[in-house]
Amino acid sequence: MVSTRPMLQVAMDTKDLNSALKTIRLVSDVVDIIEVGTILCLAEGLKAVSTIRTLYPDKLILADVRIAEAGAIIAKMVFDAQANWVSMLSSASLSTMEVVAKEAFSRGGDVQVELQDEWTLEKAKQWLNLGIRQVTIHRSRDAETKNPNWDEKSIRTIRELIDLGFKVSVTGNLSAADISTFKGIQVYAFVAGRAIREAKDPRAAAEEFNTAIRQNWK
Amino acid sequence: MVSTRPMLQVAMDTKDLNSALKTIRLVSDVVDIIEVGTILCLAEGLKAVSTIRTLYPDKLILADVRIAEAGAIIAKMVFDAQANWVSMLSSASLSTMEVVAKEAFSRGGDVQVELQDEWTLEKAKQWLNLGIRQVTIHRSRDAETKNPNWDEKSIRTIRELIDLGFKVSVTGNLSAADISTFKGIQVYAFVAGRAIREAKDPRAAAEEFNTAIRQNWK
Repeated sequence: MVSTRPMLQVAMDTKDLNSALKTIRLVSDVVDIIEVGTILCLAEGLKAVSTIRTLYPDKLILADVRIAEAGAIIAKMVFDAQANWVSMLSSASLSTMEVVAKEAFSRGGDVQVELQDEWTLEKAKQWLNLGIRQVTIHRSRDAETKNPNWDEKSIRTIRELIDLGFKVSVTGNLSAADISTFKGIQVYAFVAGRAIREAKDPRAAAEEFNTAIRQNWK
Repeated sequence: MVSTRPMLQVAMDTKDLNSALKTIRLVSDVVDIIEVGTILCLAEGLKAVSTIRTLYPDKLILADVRIAEAGAIIAKMVFDAQANWVSMLSSASLSTMEVVAKEAFSRGGDVQVELQDEWTLEKAKQWLNLGIRQVTIHRSRDAETKNPNWDEKSIRTIRELIDLGFKVSVTGNLSAADISTFKGIQVYAFVAGRAIREAKDPRAAAEEFNTAIRQNWK
């Protein structure tokens, strides 16, 4: 059996590009994926993606634009800005998913579907037919304070998705201490935002995540 | 009975600010609402909203950012950029809707919920409890070509929503010839994008919409 360690993704949900760059320059070589967050994309436009690409030509970059509609145009813009991955919402129609997947794959990119409250396994199986493999499961930023822990149900869902053939990334105000909760599960990537960005020492915080990942996935 | 004519909203889904301004300067005084589209927001960031606000201080401006998550932060950014209205997706959680509505109302703004495929009347009734009155119903940009006409079912849904107390805007590649389809229904606003932007004479195209509105709503 091949064991693959989960990757570490840093989420740049800052309100301006410079604030993001301030963190990225400290952590770029200890994270696997740089997420240009929805907030940053809206604050600066997709220029945020192309600038980060220019500075980090070899890094995986996710443009977290959460496509719901107008998939063909937005996907094209994202890949023109040289992101590797684009995110879309589980509530997008299948026809929107199809055009986004088509654009992404034709550009050597990939699509990540963000699971919202009302997604279903039935619908997820249809994404597989479109060639979509990546999903992210997360606690709502607005609901986080009300439901601070990853419950059994979420963990079961992650396992089900992996069994179906999905690469599952896990997000939602994660701390390094949360990582062991997922031990024994082939998580694709852990997404850390504030825990890295707002740490006194962002690089040490990212390394703490990596240490936790190495401890739990040999 | 007070009869209120539907308003006309022009959707600026351009890939850069200057292309949008080229159209807006021609039509600003013959449209009621300027929509800064998702595509433009992603292309240029919310600077697109603040620039259009600076140029048109008295116009209603919708920032069509389609909030799904991180509602508090994004709504704050949108109103800081001086939009009047912010859009969110019907698939957003109620807690996200609540924080967006709270931010919008505290800033003298308003919230527009974009109805996606899987919305339900049950859920819509809960939005009313949060004070949310505006919804938009549309054909998917990606599905438009497959289902080019507004069917009876959509029209019935619009009536139901209005009866519940919603202000319903109608969108999805509308032409002036479509307007009479909605005669007798108290539509809140018609959204026209390409029909105005891509017309040889955008101002004449906008006036054509207004003429159709006046003909059908006395």
